[in-house]
Amino acid sequence: MKFDVMTLFPEMVEDYFRYSIQKRAVEAGIVEVNTINPRDYAANKHRKVDDIPYGGGAGMVLMPQPYVDAYESIEKSGNSITVMLSPQGKPLTDTIVNDLTKYDQIILMCGHYEGFDERIRELIKPTEISVGDFVLTGGELPALCLIDAVSRKLEGTLGHMESAQEDSFSDGLLEYPHYTRPREFRGLEVPEVLLNGNHKEINAFRLEKSIERTKTRRPDLYEKYKKENKC
Amino acid sequence: MKFDVMTLFPEMVEDYFRYSIQKRAVEAGIVEVNTINPRDYAANKHRKVDDIPYGGGAGMVLMPQPYVDAYESIEKSGNSITVMLSPQGKPLTDTIVNDLTKYDQIILMCGHYEGFDERIRELIKPTEISVGDFVLTGGELPALCLIDAVSRKLEGTLGHMESAQEDSFSDGLLEYPHYTRPREFRGLEVPEVLLNGNHKEINAFRLEKSIERTKTRRPDLYEKYKKENKC
Repeated sequence: MKFDVMTLFPEMVEDYFRYSIQKRAVEAGIVEVNTINPRDYAANKHRKVDDIPYGGGAGMVLMPQPYVDAYESIEKSGNSITVMLSPQGKPLTDTIVNDLTKYDQIILMCGHYEGFDERIRELIKPTEISVGDFVLTGGELPALCLIDAVSRKLEGTLGHMESAQEDSFSDGLLEYPHYTRPREFRGLEVPEVLLNGNHKEINAFRLEKSIERTKTRRPDLYEKYKKENKC
Repeated sequence: MKFDVMTLFPEMVEDYFRYSIQKRAVEAGIVEVNTINPRDYAANKHRKVDDIPYGGGAGMVLMPQPYVDAYESIEKSGNSITVMLSPQGKPLTDTIVNDLTKYDQIILMCGHYEGFDERIRELIKPTEISVGDFVLTGGELPALCLIDAVSRKLEGTLGHMESAQEDSFSDGLLEYPHYTRPREFRGLEVPEVLLNGNHKEINAFRLEKSIERTKTRRPDLYEKYKKENKC
């Protein structure tokens, strides 16, 4: 999977791939990450990429020329998707993450400052995705969230000791509680059922805890789960 | 505002403050970011922080001892909140971000691998926050999203040319479209109304576009807006 990230802060994106599981995914050739800086495409002598908004107001707006020209310089595979990270997009979910794993190239458009000139949207027509109903200084963190979420689902990214199969949301429920050593810590014990080796009982316990947790914390998800599983 | 970030990958967090607006916020003394690595508190000779789950299953689970001891080592101010980044938490919203600006210390607990031993939750009792219904390899990116969203609302972080007042969600609506120079780009023109200097008309145009966009893209937000504004 190739990720082409359009950003004014390429190092902010590149840094992330120096660590942990993402580093391994790059080294194993599962993931390739490139950055494209619209500033390199600015057709003005000061390499300016933003300007004040027409109609007034605070903040700087990304100019269409550097961004659109930078976008057009990216080689597109036959199976690519272009995603703009924006609080105005569709909220990212596990289902969308799964859909994105089917592409072999994802072009990610990060904004910064106040936002994109509207004509960038009109000309590129990206799929707009948001990581939540809050505002950040740029699209870099949301782009990294998306890359991380997508790439950990790709074959080979997680080692054999890890798994994306039992994650929260994979069955429409929040994850059950985990326990590891020691059996007792500050008076709190691991539930007996997890120690007896009876896998049928363990699975029943975990499903019960997942349902209980989803019901309390995310009634919206629980309602959906009930409908889909005809409980 | 002081952020204490508990993470097994401190550099992943520290890197982010080398750039742009966040760097400025740290340099201006508006924001202070510390990292605490639970590995430094592991009371075993290999500095082990995770182990296999009781009851079986893929993935490694964070052991309670290093994490709880690390947490207890953090000096707490009288006005602090402890947040665990977890897909099982309450989804982060602009309203929660505003609430968080009222604290003077936010302790952020990042997980990695499969998750936290449940007793870490029971002993620390953090507020759990999620950045969306998807799963990441760790809590570091969500922690950075939260720090970024909160700190950009603090007095002085954004320069006088920028503003958090007109962002998406600040009035319950998505943001209106922005335009900057040039007036015409590839045949697409800036709407006439933004050029005429009539601020009443400009505001009316922007509100109309905000409502239109929210209605199409996020009917859920629009319904809430209608109710609150008695439209």
